[in-house]
Amino acid sequence: MCGIFGVYSYEKLNVAKRIYYGLFALQHRGQEGAGIATSDGKNINYYKNLGLVTDVFKSEILQNLFGYIGIGHVRYSTTGGKSVENCQPFVVKSSFGNIAIAHNGDLVNSNELRKELESKGHIFVSSTDSEVIAQLLVRELLKTSDKIEAIKNTLKKLVGAYSLLIMFNDSLIAIRDPRGFKPLCIGRDENNIYVSSEDCALTTLDAEFIRDVKPGEIIEIKDGEITSYEFDYDISKNYDTISVNAPSIYKGATTCMFEYVYFARPDSTIDGISVYKVRKNIGKILAKEHPVDADVVSPIPDSGVAFALGFSEESKIPYYEGLIKNRYVGRTFILPSQNERELAVRLKLSPVKSVLEGKRVVLVDDSIVRGTTSRRIVNMVRKAGAKEVHLRIGCPKIISPCYYGIDMATKKELIASNKTEEEIRKDLGVDSIGYISLEGLIKAIGRKDLCLACLTGKYPTDVNFEKVLERKH
Amino acid sequence: MCGIFGVYSYEKLNVAKRIYYGLFALQHRGQEGAGIATSDGKNINYYKNLGLVTDVFKSEILQNLFGYIGIGHVRYSTTGGKSVENCQPFVVKSSFGNIAIAHNGDLVNSNELRKELESKGHIFVSSTDSEVIAQLLVRELLKTSDKIEAIKNTLKKLVGAYSLLIMFNDSLIAIRDPRGFKPLCIGRDENNIYVSSEDCALTTLDAEFIRDVKPGEIIEIKDGEITSYEFDYDISKNYDTISVNAPSIYKGATTCMFEYVYFARPDSTIDGISVYKVRKNIGKILAKEHPVDADVVSPIPDSGVAFALGFSEESKIPYYEGLIKNRYVGRTFILPSQNERELAVRLKLSPVKSVLEGKRVVLVDDSIVRGTTSRRIVNMVRKAGAKEVHLRIGCPKIISPCYYGIDMATKKELIASNKTEEEIRKDLGVDSIGYISLEGLIKAIGRKDLCLACLTGKYPTDVNFEKVLERKH
Amino acid sequence: MCGIFGVYSYEKLNVAKRIYYGLFALQHRGQEGAGIATSDGKNINYYKNLGLVTDVFKSEILQNLFGYIGIGHVRYSTTGGKSVENCQPFVVKSSFGNIAIAHNGDLVNSNELRKELESKGHIFVSSTDSEVIAQLLVRELLKTSDKIEAIKNTLKKLVGAYSLLIMFNDSLIAIRDPRGFKPLCIGRDENNIYVSSEDCALTTLDAEFIRDVKPGEIIEIKDGEITSYEFDYDISKNYDTISVNAPSIYKGATTCMFEYVYFARPDSTIDGISVYKVRKNIGKILAKEHPVDADVVSPIPDSGVAFALGFSEESKIPYYEGLIKNRYVGRTFILPSQNERELAVRLKLSPVKSVLEGKRVVLVDDSIVRGTTSRRIVNMVRKAGAKEVHLRIGCPKIISPCYYGIDMATKKELIASNKTEEEIRKDLGVDSIGYISLEGLIKAIGRKDLCLACLTGKYPTDVNFEKVLERKH
Amino acid sequence: MCGIFGVYSYEKLNVAKRIYYGLFALQHRGQEGAGIATSDGKNINYYKNLGLVTDVFKSEILQNLFGYIGIGHVRYSTTGGKSVENCQPFVVKSSFGNIAIAHNGDLVNSNELRKELESKGHIFVSSTDSEVIAQLLVRELLKTSDKIEAIKNTLKKLVGAYSLLIMFNDSLIAIRDPRGFKPLCIGRDENNIYVSSEDCALTTLDAEFIRDVKPGEIIEIKDGEITSYEFDYDISKNYDTISVNAPSIYKGATTCMFEYVYFARPDSTIDGISVYKVRKNIGKILAKEHPVDADVVSPIPDSGVAFALGFSEESKIPYYEGLIKNRYVGRTFILPSQNERELAVRLKLSPVKSVLEGKRVVLVDDSIVRGTTSRRIVNMVRKAGAKEVHLRIGCPKIISPCYYGIDMATKKELIASNKTEEEIRKDLGVDSIGYISLEGLIKAIGRKDLCLACLTGKYPTDVNFEKVLERKH
Repeated sequence: MCGIFGVYSYEKLNVAKRIYYGLFALQHRGQEGAGIATSDGKNINYYKNLGLVTDVFKSEILQNLFGYIGIGHVRYSTTGGKSVENCQPFVVKSSFGNIAIAHNGDLVNSNELRKELESKGHIFVSSTDSEVIAQLLVRELLKTSDKIEAIKNTLKKLVGAYSLLIMFNDSLIAIRDPRGFKPLCIGRDENNIYVSSEDCALTTLDAEFIRDVKPGEIIEIKDGEITSYEFDYDISKNYDTISVNAPSIYKGATTCMFEYVYFARPDSTIDGISVYKVRKNIGKILAKEHPVDADVVSPIPDSGVAFALGFSEESKIPYYEGLIKNRYVGRTFILPSQNERELAVRLKLSPVKSVLEGKRVVLVDDSIVRGTTSRRIVNMVRKAGAKEVHLRIGCPKIISPCYYGIDMATKKELIASNKTEEEIRKDLGVDSIGYISLEGLIKAIGRKDLCLACLTGKYPTDVNFEKVLERKH
Repeated sequence: MCGIFGVYSYEKLNVAKRIYYGLFALQHRGQEGAGIATSDGKNINYYKNLGLVTDVFKSEILQNLFGYIGIGHVRYSTTGGKSVENCQPFVVKSSFGNIAIAHNGDLVNSNELRKELESKGHIFVSSTDSEVIAQLLVRELLKTSDKIEAIKNTLKKLVGAYSLLIMFNDSLIAIRDPRGFKPLCIGRDENNIYVSSEDCALTTLDAEFIRDVKPGEIIEIKDGEITSYEFDYDISKNYDTISVNAPSIYKGATTCMFEYVYFARPDSTIDGISVYKVRKNIGKILAKEHPVDADVVSPIPDSGVAFALGFSEESKIPYYEGLIKNRYVGRTFILPSQNERELAVRLKLSPVKSVLEGKRVVLVDDSIVRGTTSRRIVNMVRKAGAKEVHLRIGCPKIISPCYYGIDMATKKELIASNKTEEEIRKDLGVDSIGYISLEGLIKAIGRKDLCLACLTGKYPTDVNFEKVLERKH
Repeated sequence: MCGIFGVYSYEKLNVAKRIYYGLFALQHRGQEGAGIATSDGKNINYYKNLGLVTDVFKSEILQNLFGYIGIGHVRYSTTGGKSVENCQPFVVKSSFGNIAIAHNGDLVNSNELRKELESKGHIFVSSTDSEVIAQLLVRELLKTSDKIEAIKNTLKKLVGAYSLLIMFNDSLIAIRDPRGFKPLCIGRDENNIYVSSEDCALTTLDAEFIRDVKPGEIIEIKDGEITSYEFDYDISKNYDTISVNAPSIYKGATTCMFEYVYFARPDSTIDGISVYKVRKNIGKILAKEHPVDADVVSPIPDSGVAFALGFSEESKIPYYEGLIKNRYVGRTFILPSQNERELAVRLKLSPVKSVLEGKRVVLVDDSIVRGTTSRRIVNMVRKAGAKEVHLRIGCPKIISPCYYGIDMATKKELIASNKTEEEIRKDLGVDSIGYISLEGLIKAIGRKDLCLACLTGKYPTDVNFEKVLERKH
Repeated sequence: MCGIFGVYSYEKLNVAKRIYYGLFALQHRGQEGAGIATSDGKNINYYKNLGLVTDVFKSEILQNLFGYIGIGHVRYSTTGGKSVENCQPFVVKSSFGNIAIAHNGDLVNSNELRKELESKGHIFVSSTDSEVIAQLLVRELLKTSDKIEAIKNTLKKLVGAYSLLIMFNDSLIAIRDPRGFKPLCIGRDENNIYVSSEDCALTTLDAEFIRDVKPGEIIEIKDGEITSYEFDYDISKNYDTISVNAPSIYKGATTCMFEYVYFARPDSTIDGISVYKVRKNIGKILAKEHPVDADVVSPIPDSGVAFALGFSEESKIPYYEGLIKNRYVGRTFILPSQNERELAVRLKLSPVKSVLEGKRVVLVDDSIVRGTTSRRIVNMVRKAGAKEVHLRIGCPKIISPCYYGIDMATKKELIASNKTEEEIRKDLGVDSIGYISLEGLIKAIGRKDLCLACLTGKYPTDVNFEKVLERKH
């Protein structure tokens, strides 16, 4: 998972600072590393490093990033492989000028593509899909001088999820794969055209939202004009979505449900659907599907808040904050020793005794991570005097890995184990537990053209599981 | 405003790391600087610097802070005078061994005390009250070898607010002034005795709360034993509290109402009263005092949340988050230029269109700071489509400066101006505005032994205004 | 100009720390950036960044560089193009495993090679020759599984200067171009084989010097054994060396004379010739070629010391330090303002009045840089009371650019201008000036198989001047 | 040992940057910490921290140090007690305005003074003599409004070594103790008056040297005028200097001989005597006192250079650099492990084989530190092929501790042991060893009004050994 952001300035003003603020608004999509590349029409300047946007970019660095076109990237922290080389944008010098690429999503066939390129003598300095795409693109550019044609020929070879920004010396290209796995939208203000993973970054910059990039669409911004092209090579097989009474936004699309449930910012709107509303809906449906007699509904902050509010609204059980999150969490601090793991949780979350004491409490969260943290939180809530603790989860059980860009490694651990709900309930020490149903989730989101692979095991594209796994190691 | 935290280990184990975590939990009380001093019975070690607790203390530094007794301090960021010298604890070498002092509050007569000491040949290296207290204390120690006696003689001279930690080579002393302006409480676990500005730090360390330190109480922790002493020199005049039907917790006390309204963490309990409950009560009373016909109640995060929940509960108007706070705010980032001030606000807060569009919105906040930020937020909410915007404020109008440790410089600016509520309403561009009443506030807190000086202009101690002001410059 | 250092541990112990110390000893060869890559037989680890070796590598980083084979690089600070991407070793992932390359020298035809590769669809992420060599090598490896064969085929294409380290997963290769432009030698201790730009790094590590790598030699270290291969593709044209009565060390070689004069450390020995001895010889010959009646000989520190000692020995004029270098120079400090340029020189060098006052002084330096610094030093010496100032220079006039790796940009500026010696003398304000002759230089070095292109304009390889220059921009 | 530097600007221009450069030139006098305090006539600004001048002061910090009067300090790294609090200038706020003090030297009776002050209720935040002096001075200022009178009354109480800078709001005072232990001189340029520990800092700033401050002199710079006052309270007993035929510069003075031998920069002149000349003289006298038949004279860099040159000149044995110092030493680097101690020496010094091989070598150094380093160097020289190694030392054996500011802790270790010269010779593994004689040293310096206490055990002031030692712990 990552975030991408691009700007093209009509007035040929420097855009690096705009990108900086855009990436700051998309920081939740990736905390491992950040990068910005800009072009002044001839030369490319770029800088990338590990760390948060605010740590990576200091004034001096930003001031040197001249250029009226630019793209930026925030990288998600996955286990292993943390290195500057894997930060993006990926920038290459070629006979076609400089090219910079920023990518959100995961290709399913990147391993095969990489091997094929290697057999032709190509070498790789990173393990990013962006480098694979760059190599393919340059090969296509040798065959045709029409950049859009070359891009289309490149995309033909890609299988998987990709929201993509490509910057040439004098143009900015935005692409969303035919399945529309990952969000991407465009906006503008009086001086600039923007492309962003989420519209929350447009709001931050006070830019006007134009529209979402459509699945299978290529948008070219050049000479101050926006042109749209279509392609649809990726849809390699029919994908039977769950038969639920819900509309499709885009024919054939399979947008990642986890963007709505967890990943995107609550103030974003993806393909016309408000993320905040989805989460409140989930809470309401949860309350219907798993009602409980209780005194107070409390979220596990931060991600549980909207779910809990919906649950409270539907159930009429009053909403209180039973747990307060320390505002300073997120900074690097000296970790408690091994035998103080409980302390690590208490440094982040603190119970509000006056809310919990003697109460039957419904705790609402988006998903269960491993279970160890949940168990400690439940324990903390009980210790603060709660009489009963009921857990409600805003996402169905995750049973299958994601190959399109979400690192489920941690998410799946509990679920992947063969525990029944009852076993999980006992394990976490709660009085009852309830996950939203698949149908409930789809209704809450309000569209059925979703990728639900991690919940159902049915993948919308061909997946050569062996090859994909190989790459992971 | 500041936070203080002390630990005494029975087992003579190093306490620096405990203090580090305690200060982390009290970080909200002061972000300008932090310090820790420890004693191993003979030698004192200390370190202090500007910055957040997590920035000031790194592993190597903490490892060098040997000692089984220790005190720590977080310093509030006031305008001007930002320097390492003013960080605390203040540590001195004297013929009575090392002495370290950490202070929360402001003395009203420190300027006079300082002048008097200077006339006797004393010099000062900082502008802290702690140094004044240290000088007085050492003079008293010359007269009597009884430390508690010397402390009592010292306290006789102090007028104003002070929750105080004093560390000698082999003992830890905790003191709360007779008016009980600032909170202070004690706790324990199997190995340690703790003293803390707020009990939230005890919760974080999984320590058991014992009780609040009483106004006019000296607590000495020495040889593993806790001894309590009384004194009451400070109460220099009668203080007529508002005649409201509410109980007094402590006779003659005037505890700072702003601790409940804004300053303390919501999960803390001060003098037996839950801060969270107070804030919810305020919301409820606000809804009664200033009802409004609206579609949605939204807090201005973070501080408005509990107020808004109370308002929603009482008014039955549903609670939604109309504004989302960027989780990464608080980090140092490259500021927008002068003509992008609106951007600075949008980087922190973002409107949720789906919540606000077409709605009559009640915005609830704890207080109005200058008004400029409020105006921008109101503007942002309107731009997101709100039909009406009603502002409700959880604190009465602040009309008089605080001399006891709260920097109202910024808080008072709007209020101090002679604007009427109607003028403020127009200025902020809202459809209605409502402040909680003084009586409502007292009822919400549930005690009447409060300092309300900033709201009424009546000060519970003598204040030589000229001398106090002089010191400020 | 750069420095390279490689280690292969028989005992399969980690070698990163050895490389760190080796690079520290070679730091004078490049201060812009540093990098280390290590292999444990399967995986490659590497880290590189801008800065001095001691700034780039901290304990944590070094500890993560596992592996019993490793190569390191220090990069020379050239004007412009300062970026992490250009730091070395250059590391690639290919179907033949990981490959790391560290290069000292400059290819003359890298621009043509780069264009040719680009026309075949290759892309570049840096502007280093190492990347060009890596791309060529991987293409050759596709044709033959014999690594040495592939390397030989690659070297056939290279024209110019290259002392090269190539690390495969399980072997370390050291190469010196057929002209032997740059030094390279091998050493060993009981646990390791070393390859180093200069033997001073072997001395530092208490390793035994084995021998210089011969021009046109490939050395492979694998499975604990050293194998030597020959090749000689580079010698593209006959190179008529000056007819001076001096021996050749290697037939056909043209080793860079500037290594002896300025670049290498005085305690190094290159191709069997002591650098220190060369410099003392130069001083002696200078004294013969440009005698002067004077009271004291003083070096311009640090590089002039050995020259001045030789001059003193020959001329019998006593040697004194007339200028003291501030030991703390080299650290980043706040620069004096534009109109304090003289101060910048005085911060580095300080005159010893008691040595200079009333004296006829011979100042000896290795070369004249621009002239501005020299003029200021001469001025400083006169101000300290010198009656006469005579300048003696240990290198003939540089009249032609170097295409093999020495950045003469700054060196040549004065010389390139059409000034006569007399004009230069006046310009610098000295009473006399004297450069060593070309013949004198060759005699001082004691070998005639030298590259003297920058002094004569005759280049030992084909140089397509246009293409080379193009690359520089 | 420390360095002090003061500036007073007639034109009321900011002087902080001047002080920065002055301290940079005095950096050799103390590498532990640095500080600058400036006054604009009303307010004082200051900053101090651990580290080198270039590390402590960055542009932002320097820019905030407004003021046309200023004093700076570099602190010597002594074992233990390394903390910011002990950095200078020491700055106090008193009823007489701000006072800043910078001190070079050690008071012999500071412990008694401190106790006396404590008994009167004074407290201390540092362990510096400056704080003691500040406290005394403020007490005297209470008695008389005449600052010079108060200073004189303060100085009456001080026994020991002190070159002192005192800054009041509007004046700068420079003081040198009556024994003249430590150097201090004044200079000027068209805009400023300077006071500096050594004149090398004046040279760096292109300021004109006026004269040395005389022992027992107070210089006041105020309203652009310089006034001189005399005092002589310190000379508490007669001090019989060695009866050698040498002049006295100042009657009754006992200037530290170690300034000439080791501590001061070679380009400085102290009390009219060139340090460089003294060191060359020492070399010459050493050659006469301890002649040896050898092939080459080599210094142990850096401090042995001038000694070795003198030895060579007198003995006619040619001077060569047999050891090269790595220019990058002095930076923080990852230390070799315990069993690689030899490596630590080789990282600093490297033998020049061509100079040493087969030669009888005279190594010249200023003094022997412990012996361990010397032994390793001798070993290194032998390993490089030296046939014989003869050690010559430019300072007589140190047999008694210094109480006036030089940390002999390390210096004395070898000497303090009861080894004879023959035992030391064997221990270091040299063929012969020779220390300069006491008479030789005095002749080399050319004055007999020197403090030789560390060489003779005869102290020029009263020393209460018990009290002094007590303070050290």
